[in-house]
Amino acid sequence: MSLLRKDPILGRWIIISTERPKRPEDYTILEEPEGHAGPEDCPFCAGNESKTPPEISSFRAEKTKPNTPGWWIRSIPSADPFLNSEGHLEREGSGIYDWMNGVGAHEIIIESPEHVLRIEDLPESQVEKVLWAYRDRILNLERDERLRYVLIVKNQGAAAGSAIPHTHSQIIATPIIPKLVKEKLDGAKSYYDYKERCVFCDMIRQEQLSPERVIEDSRHFLVMAPFAPRFPFEIWIYPKEHSCSYADISKEQIMDLSRVLRATLGKLGKALNKPPYNYILYTAPNRVPRRGHWHSLKDDFHWHLEIMPRLMRVAGFERGSGFYTNPTPPELAAQSLRDVTL
Amino acid sequence: MSLLRKDPILGRWIIISTERPKRPEDYTILEEPEGHAGPEDCPFCAGNESKTPPEISSFRAEKTKPNTPGWWIRSIPSADPFLNSEGHLEREGSGIYDWMNGVGAHEIIIESPEHVLRIEDLPESQVEKVLWAYRDRILNLERDERLRYVLIVKNQGAAAGSAIPHTHSQIIATPIIPKLVKEKLDGAKSYYDYKERCVFCDMIRQEQLSPERVIEDSRHFLVMAPFAPRFPFEIWIYPKEHSCSYADISKEQIMDLSRVLRATLGKLGKALNKPPYNYILYTAPNRVPRRGHWHSLKDDFHWHLEIMPRLMRVAGFERGSGFYTNPTPPELAAQSLRDVTL
Repeated sequence: MSLLRKDPILGRWIIISTERPKRPEDYTILEEPEGHAGPEDCPFCAGNESKTPPEISSFRAEKTKPNTPGWWIRSIPSADPFLNSEGHLEREGSGIYDWMNGVGAHEIIIESPEHVLRIEDLPESQVEKVLWAYRDRILNLERDERLRYVLIVKNQGAAAGSAIPHTHSQIIATPIIPKLVKEKLDGAKSYYDYKERCVFCDMIRQEQLSPERVIEDSRHFLVMAPFAPRFPFEIWIYPKEHSCSYADISKEQIMDLSRVLRATLGKLGKALNKPPYNYILYTAPNRVPRRGHWHSLKDDFHWHLEIMPRLMRVAGFERGSGFYTNPTPPELAAQSLRDVTL
Repeated sequence: MSLLRKDPILGRWIIISTERPKRPEDYTILEEPEGHAGPEDCPFCAGNESKTPPEISSFRAEKTKPNTPGWWIRSIPSADPFLNSEGHLEREGSGIYDWMNGVGAHEIIIESPEHVLRIEDLPESQVEKVLWAYRDRILNLERDERLRYVLIVKNQGAAAGSAIPHTHSQIIATPIIPKLVKEKLDGAKSYYDYKERCVFCDMIRQEQLSPERVIEDSRHFLVMAPFAPRFPFEIWIYPKEHSCSYADISKEQIMDLSRVLRATLGKLGKALNKPPYNYILYTAPNRVPRRGHWHSLKDDFHWHLEIMPRLMRVAGFERGSGFYTNPTPPELAAQSLRDVTL
């Protein structure tokens, strides 16, 4: 079980594990788990299905059984979940403090039956399947009325927080809208209230007119280095057509995105010697439970994907102020990535 | 020179270095600089004063000259500053984007003439001098009307962002109030508007009544594990008497704080095998330039120090959502630290 606790000053929610709490002796300082598991011990490789919790869903060959080989993509519950899918959502308080029980979902999407370490090393057709799996899990989880948001996250490499090197993504569904997502929604809404236009659509148009930060402008997607990137070589991918939810992505868009995502990560890997990175998919909050509230988001939010390479340590200034320093101007990053030939 | 750029959706400011921009080949993946400089090469050791920019101020023996040995504490400009102290503050914009030039200050306080690696290993009388130096630099920098905030940050260890192992702190003065500080000020103000009481004072009283998260309750300071900590073994130190600005600290408080800070970091080091950490001093925004605005802060803000150990990697979920997961409940952390005997 876990508990969500709210900071009384910042209103920031934190997930505290109460089931297997870590004591001082359980911390080994910033260990490097990468490379520990070879294909034979890897719980995510085909043939080792019994080493993971039973699958939630999979894309697999006809007549093969769940939890046996024959799959291309496999979704499983996390073996060490932040949040639990059972129980009612209960809120409580004491004096200035508030908490709720840790209801939510924490799943893993295994992106290949083979022991491949990076999504960009998969064939395009396999990346397509991953992108379909993202959509399917969002559609499934947003039907749960206790949940408000589904976040899709990739941790690539131990330094980016990955404990298992076999390529996979995490799906985390939360009972509240995460703070950073809320700030995006609020920022986009303020702009819409003032301009009656989507801030993301305006940004896409401005970047296309003066494309010094554009890395690729494909049929359906704009790949760009953002104007104010927190991290060196940060990359944003936006659908050019306005749409608030990734769950509404079309087949044609998925085909284009699988090529674009693979190429972008391939260029990043080639320019920077396969760096660790995170990527995050930002979609609209869950639509089903609160349809009324949902309709206002349709115009002002615009789903997107952010890639954040890990090239520098985040020091105390960034942690303590929320102010980031970046020694690579995004115009230089975009140019360097445009210049890479795969 | 550097440039401040604003994210058009989140309103978050980023510092972009334009003078010595880093190209892809300048990144070596998360190198570990610690231990590179021994005492003979260390630019922060007494005798090596010529290896740093000329000092801004120092506490030194009578009749010794600036930039020569004889000092106990030495303040210097950063050799690689994020922000520059020259020039006017100019704001500009283009379409949806805004920027300003990187006016500010970035200084280093060298905390010992000897090659000591951690502040908690200094004698108490030396830690006192460090705490006076913090106050002096805040008082000096808040007189600069272009600047809005002075942040004091400690990066302990390479994994916490420190490039030079000799014990030191950074002072960063910014022309805007950093986002996380603004959120604290806003949160405290909302509470004050509603309750007409300081949220921090209320929190201190609640913790004292039920002290399961209290690590030490000294004459002038409360040392506690926060109710909703972002990081395992996070520790907050609050003055028990309401005061918005660290610059108003008394001699008696400094003497108590030097003992308390040294003991707290000593316990953390003993419990967790000298982990890397950051600490941050949060004081009120600069008072001199905007006296009118300042008066409202006097009642609702309360200065404090936050210690954030680096025991886990921050993964994509945290980066992308602002939602933190913590496997050590603060009650367990407080108990473990109370149990340490130095």
